[in-house]
Amino acid sequence: MSDTKPRKADFQAPRGTRDFYPEHMARLNWLFDHWRQVSRRHGFEEYEGPLYEHLELYTVKSGEGIVSELFSFQDRGERDLAIRPEITPTLARMIAAKAAALPRPIKWFSMPRACRAERPQRGRLREFFQWNVDVLGSESVLADAECIFVMLDFLRTVGLGPDLVEVQVNSRTIVGALLEQEGVSPDRHERVFTVMDRYQKLEPDAFREFVLSQGFTDVDFDLITRIIRIPDLEAMKDLVKSDPAKCEFDRLNELKGYLDHFGVGDYFRYRADVVRGLAYYTGIVFEVFDRGSKLRAIAGGGRYDNLIRLFNGPDMPAVGFGMGDPVLMELLADLKLLPETDGAQGPQVFVIDADAEMFQTALEMVGRLRMRGIAAEMSYKRQAVGKQFKQAASRCARTAVVLGRETREQKLLTIKNLDDGTQSQVDLEKFLEDPAAFVGG
Amino acid sequence: MSDTKPRKADFQAPRGTRDFYPEHMARLNWLFDHWRQVSRRHGFEEYEGPLYEHLELYTVKSGEGIVSELFSFQDRGERDLAIRPEITPTLARMIAAKAAALPRPIKWFSMPRACRAERPQRGRLREFFQWNVDVLGSESVLADAECIFVMLDFLRTVGLGPDLVEVQVNSRTIVGALLEQEGVSPDRHERVFTVMDRYQKLEPDAFREFVLSQGFTDVDFDLITRIIRIPDLEAMKDLVKSDPAKCEFDRLNELKGYLDHFGVGDYFRYRADVVRGLAYYTGIVFEVFDRGSKLRAIAGGGRYDNLIRLFNGPDMPAVGFGMGDPVLMELLADLKLLPETDGAQGPQVFVIDADAEMFQTALEMVGRLRMRGIAAEMSYKRQAVGKQFKQAASRCARTAVVLGRETREQKLLTIKNLDDGTQSQVDLEKFLEDPAAFVGG
Repeated sequence: MSDTKPRKADFQAPRGTRDFYPEHMARLNWLFDHWRQVSRRHGFEEYEGPLYEHLELYTVKSGEGIVSELFSFQDRGERDLAIRPEITPTLARMIAAKAAALPRPIKWFSMPRACRAERPQRGRLREFFQWNVDVLGSESVLADAECIFVMLDFLRTVGLGPDLVEVQVNSRTIVGALLEQEGVSPDRHERVFTVMDRYQKLEPDAFREFVLSQGFTDVDFDLITRIIRIPDLEAMKDLVKSDPAKCEFDRLNELKGYLDHFGVGDYFRYRADVVRGLAYYTGIVFEVFDRGSKLRAIAGGGRYDNLIRLFNGPDMPAVGFGMGDPVLMELLADLKLLPETDGAQGPQVFVIDADAEMFQTALEMVGRLRMRGIAAEMSYKRQAVGKQFKQAASRCARTAVVLGRETREQKLLTIKNLDDGTQSQVDLEKFLEDPAAFVGG
Repeated sequence: MSDTKPRKADFQAPRGTRDFYPEHMARLNWLFDHWRQVSRRHGFEEYEGPLYEHLELYTVKSGEGIVSELFSFQDRGERDLAIRPEITPTLARMIAAKAAALPRPIKWFSMPRACRAERPQRGRLREFFQWNVDVLGSESVLADAECIFVMLDFLRTVGLGPDLVEVQVNSRTIVGALLEQEGVSPDRHERVFTVMDRYQKLEPDAFREFVLSQGFTDVDFDLITRIIRIPDLEAMKDLVKSDPAKCEFDRLNELKGYLDHFGVGDYFRYRADVVRGLAYYTGIVFEVFDRGSKLRAIAGGGRYDNLIRLFNGPDMPAVGFGMGDPVLMELLADLKLLPETDGAQGPQVFVIDADAEMFQTALEMVGRLRMRGIAAEMSYKRQAVGKQFKQAASRCARTAVVLGRETREQKLLTIKNLDDGTQSQVDLEKFLEDPAAFVGG
């Protein structure tokens, strides 16, 4: 072993990461189970990709600027790699590689772990899980509606009804048309979207300062502020004149109609300031916030019709969203919507040997139960029955199966229900034939 | 967006990693489900830790030599970090931090993703999943037996019976006693274990060359070879004279007895050459191989009674094992034991609108079914009934629910079983009240 004598302080989780002790892990699994179940019943198939990718996979989409937000490193061949900050570039790479063989629409989901070299703060960690749901290969607004529906169905399922959260929807096509109409050339739109994306995250003064710091004038700031304050879709429609933008209004109305028919229209809200910060969105965009926007966005997504081509794939329209676990779990905790997890994992059966000669039978019993799929435990120590019962209770076992003199002499065992304290005697052979009939599955 | 025009070759998964398309992901989930279910029924609770740790966490256990096998990087504060090559140091850190609050025995499992900067080859990747099962806080051989039992129960469950795989067991205490008896001082034992660990992985000539290259003499080589060739536990017992080693023989026999009682004794085989390569093992060690050892070890583990103290925790005996997915999945594929996954994920219901006016009803139907937990899909395109049936078949849907003129006029819908082609008409309202009664859950 090494002689290095480290300082005690070294043995902590790195900043912005989390240790999941069993009670936390149970909550995370509860979340994963819901993400997965909801995805599947909406017809999405699960995929996964590498934990790290070639660095170029991220710079091609987001430019060199993203490198400072990545954990990057080199392999032995001095190839530049980075831990994934999101899974969409991996998705695009995988789709591009097999585009011809995949029947459309491609409906995929994933729950990747990802890392970003950000400054940790409330709702933002350096390491997180992110549910990703995407529909590729369809231009239909039904695809956008389906993505938003699966997201809202999940929120509804975990108790986040339309009284608690809302999906804020907009279209970059519409805001782009308005900007162009007001004399902002298309090559500057991306930068406008980037600053608009910060509006809900900053105080008014800080927002103004930020906009000016990004190379915009006071005139630009006034225009941006005017757009942000457009109260609803009708007001926006009155302002915008271009034809492509008019089609996009139809798409937004169609989207709202589909969500109504699906039964989740109450979540919908038009917001002129929602444009998303990432460069690759091309049309409808959306974000989920808690009503009152006390927290960061819970989820966000939109159309990205050009991304697959960027990764050398065919032209393939696409829409999708991501939902990280940190903000969501904070909101669920604040609202007391997280499940109780203490003791939920307790075994079905705790086998107790009340007679020294029953130890071997107890081992056989535990072996038999487990191999039949029944969660069973026993004490490692040969100790008094009372202590074994105490351990059964501390492990949150639901049933005790007691092997004692009557087992040895009459082939009988005692089954005690540890919830209500009732007990009964059962024939050993009958029990072993079908233990689930006596202690549940 | 960036102007960078990358070479096409950049858009590939990094060397030694894998893309999990839905059919592969289904297999991975099948594996995870089994790992998790088996762990739980043996009374183990799930935990997880950060994807990366402070680099010191790995060097303290394995020395600076491990750094070349890690993917290491720095955060903004120039702190050295590394993607985890295994989860045991994280486990030790987490246990040490809360040792006083955790009731013993601590029975935990995890299925971490981990990375090693190794040269990729058959059964060895740079990125993998590893099932980890550990019992901490008990010296009892029952803890060792329980770890091995959970491992064997899993193998049995996926079809790997004792005719196909075996668990090879030994004790470092015994080999250490024999080495000391033969004049090899304890400070050199670790290096002997390291070379012995390579025996099954190398051809005889290559093994000899390797031993001599590690600073051992021909006399050492002969001793090592003699030990490796000891055929069974009895022969070993005849050779070893020290008292602590004699106790260890008792422990090994006890272990074999427990495994017999649990019902998995047929997997057990004593092998004098199994010592494990990692420095932290202290007693019983074991590895699982396919009979005939065509592949690398499928799993390996043992006692590591000093590790928690090394991480500034209390004295806490511990035993555990790790099983990676690559070798296991190769063996299962070779033996045709992997499940068929194509189409297994198909939706329960595919909703078809056979009448233009039924589109809205179809949307409502899909919304209702999904929110009741029934997997349902529909076509994005309003197209001929025949094409919709074709899409239902290509999505592997089990039932088609057809909404047509009779739905509009008589509130009737048609349910078609897509497996056997049978169909029936059902009242729309009755169906919506309890759809599961008509199409399954």
